[in-house]
Amino acid sequence: MDNFTFYSPTFFVFGRDTEKEAGSYVKKFGGTKVLIHYGGGSVVRSGLLDRVKASLDREAIPYLILGGVKPNPRSGLVYEGIDICRKEGVDFVLAVGGGSVIDSSKAIAAGTVYDGDFWDFYNGKYIEEALPVGTILTIAAAGSEGSPDSVITKEEGMFKRGATGNAIRPRFSILNPALTQTLPAFQTAAGITDIMAHLYERYLTNTTEVEVTDRLIEALLLTMIHEGPRVIEDPDHYEARANIMWAGMMAHNNAVGVGRSQDWNSHNIEHELSALYDCAHGAGLAVTMPAVFRYVMNHNVMRFAQVAVRVWGCQMDFAHPEVTALAGIEALRHFLKSIGMPGNFAELGAKEEDIPKLVEVLCRGDGRQGSISGFVTLTEEDCTKIYQMMV
Amino acid sequence: MDNFTFYSPTFFVFGRDTEKEAGSYVKKFGGTKVLIHYGGGSVVRSGLLDRVKASLDREAIPYLILGGVKPNPRSGLVYEGIDICRKEGVDFVLAVGGGSVIDSSKAIAAGTVYDGDFWDFYNGKYIEEALPVGTILTIAAAGSEGSPDSVITKEEGMFKRGATGNAIRPRFSILNPALTQTLPAFQTAAGITDIMAHLYERYLTNTTEVEVTDRLIEALLLTMIHEGPRVIEDPDHYEARANIMWAGMMAHNNAVGVGRSQDWNSHNIEHELSALYDCAHGAGLAVTMPAVFRYVMNHNVMRFAQVAVRVWGCQMDFAHPEVTALAGIEALRHFLKSIGMPGNFAELGAKEEDIPKLVEVLCRGDGRQGSISGFVTLTEEDCTKIYQMMV
Repeated sequence: MDNFTFYSPTFFVFGRDTEKEAGSYVKKFGGTKVLIHYGGGSVVRSGLLDRVKASLDREAIPYLILGGVKPNPRSGLVYEGIDICRKEGVDFVLAVGGGSVIDSSKAIAAGTVYDGDFWDFYNGKYIEEALPVGTILTIAAAGSEGSPDSVITKEEGMFKRGATGNAIRPRFSILNPALTQTLPAFQTAAGITDIMAHLYERYLTNTTEVEVTDRLIEALLLTMIHEGPRVIEDPDHYEARANIMWAGMMAHNNAVGVGRSQDWNSHNIEHELSALYDCAHGAGLAVTMPAVFRYVMNHNVMRFAQVAVRVWGCQMDFAHPEVTALAGIEALRHFLKSIGMPGNFAELGAKEEDIPKLVEVLCRGDGRQGSISGFVTLTEEDCTKIYQMMV
Repeated sequence: MDNFTFYSPTFFVFGRDTEKEAGSYVKKFGGTKVLIHYGGGSVVRSGLLDRVKASLDREAIPYLILGGVKPNPRSGLVYEGIDICRKEGVDFVLAVGGGSVIDSSKAIAAGTVYDGDFWDFYNGKYIEEALPVGTILTIAAAGSEGSPDSVITKEEGMFKRGATGNAIRPRFSILNPALTQTLPAFQTAAGITDIMAHLYERYLTNTTEVEVTDRLIEALLLTMIHEGPRVIEDPDHYEARANIMWAGMMAHNNAVGVGRSQDWNSHNIEHELSALYDCAHGAGLAVTMPAVFRYVMNHNVMRFAQVAVRVWGCQMDFAHPEVTALAGIEALRHFLKSIGMPGNFAELGAKEEDIPKLVEVLCRGDGRQGSISGFVTLTEEDCTKIYQMMV
């Protein structure tokens, strides 16, 4: 196990009706003027936005509102939010939505108190300071409610890049599983896939002797396998949604990923897909993961065999561990298909002829020198082959 | 799953040589005058205390020193610590040791800024304010390095009671697994048992639909079963110690226990043993747990069967689940014996004739009305039978 630090100071408020406490938590964490940031009309139609406003009114906390965050959130709206916060003296950003809304809120919070262009953070500058952020989560997926990370797409060039810093960890996150019951099945499944990807990215490590984090990651994968089909079958299943929601947070606040190298190449490879085609991140990951895993499997067959046996219930083939390893990858692929995720480029809306462009941006964009590093370092040739496996 | 809040803002610093950073973390968290609190001579002999002092010297942070914390820490030394902190204007308590030292430090930190008798907190008053506490952990066991809890024994009457409050959560905890390599095997095993007890106390719940926390608890139990024997076999096994140390923190900061009722009756029943005989808490738990579990097993046979199958690798007897449930309890008992823990009253140094006294204090002490509540409510008669099963 490697040396590490771990810090997750977010105050989590979990359960039914907890969004009504938003105002009191904003007050508790020092907010006196709030920007409520959200995405589309669903939080308006569901009445959630009104309940949040009412909770701020009860605490006599004034607020401004900025909606319109899209999946794969864009830099344009971030600049707009920064302008509002500066002009209006906002001192707290309250995200009401999923990972995209939270990531956009984090970018606004960091950008407001920074003299330069906020995109600097997405070019690798660590975020030291930001306005405090709170979240009211409406989809279990990105884990942004408990993470120090944010991913934004820059409109010029459609670069999708991440930034990080403890300053943008939410001060509080309100997690009411009932708020996720109105999600379309496809979005629920994409969220489940994203959570599983966060777990696999941590599982694929070159660090040895990491039994505790291996076991914890497996526990969360087993939870997704148990609860995923229940919630797809019955969208109103509060209990299944609750288990998924806590698993989604635990999958990404890094409590289960400490002290080990991680992969993140499935995310890297997928990011180019959702940047170019604007597909759901989870859907892109469903197509990407099995291809990446088959491609890198021989780098550590026993690791893939371990997850196959412990998580997918495969029988260990002691004479041919690679058979077991592959069976685990196939079990993942079938699971993702069973919950309604796409399985190839066509189902995702991606095009084979774009592969050279995808590889170019992936391996040469943003200062990269012809490869991406992770569990296995992947060259342009490797990435080309992986994208071709997805066709 | 029940509604809950979860808050674990401790900054964890994990790995080799990390104790040398103690001074910089005290500074980071605002300490300007420190009480270093520790137990016996081992931290002196090992040179750990000198390294900690040197790290404070490097930051020019003055300190006072108070040693002498005993296992099952006593109220007398807490009063002494409070006096020192008040007289000397100490504003940070740095615990160098195990759970007893940390718990004593937390009591001092809370008592220093409280007008009344610090024992009020151990009679049920929530701790709202305290000096900041930091820890340098020397044994993986109590989980106090990441918890809001403290257990102290009051010398008059030998009452052993707990207090809680987010104010006494450590601001930082330094976890260097190498520091635990010099522990005697018995203490290492007692620590392992304590960690497993923290997991079982959370596992035994009357809340349904808690798959995610079930799976996480099982993951940590599996880790202990894998790493425990390795570290007993080879005390210098850094990697096994590292896995146990992170599992010990995760077992008790409650990330794996949220949203569910918990038991804690094994702890309640054990506390009277270590209060009366001054035995190691973990050793007491090794004798207590199997007896309690056999006694309450029929309250929810399937829960005990589940842990037997998922954690202990027992075959499920679908016609007779109670057979599987019992096999799991037996597997736990054998495991604890295999790592050197006592199995009965005699091996623990407890006496059958004291049972009436133990039950009296347990069920009538400290305002209790003749029973203790948890997974199953246990009357004086129940507790008498359970203690008799341990003879």
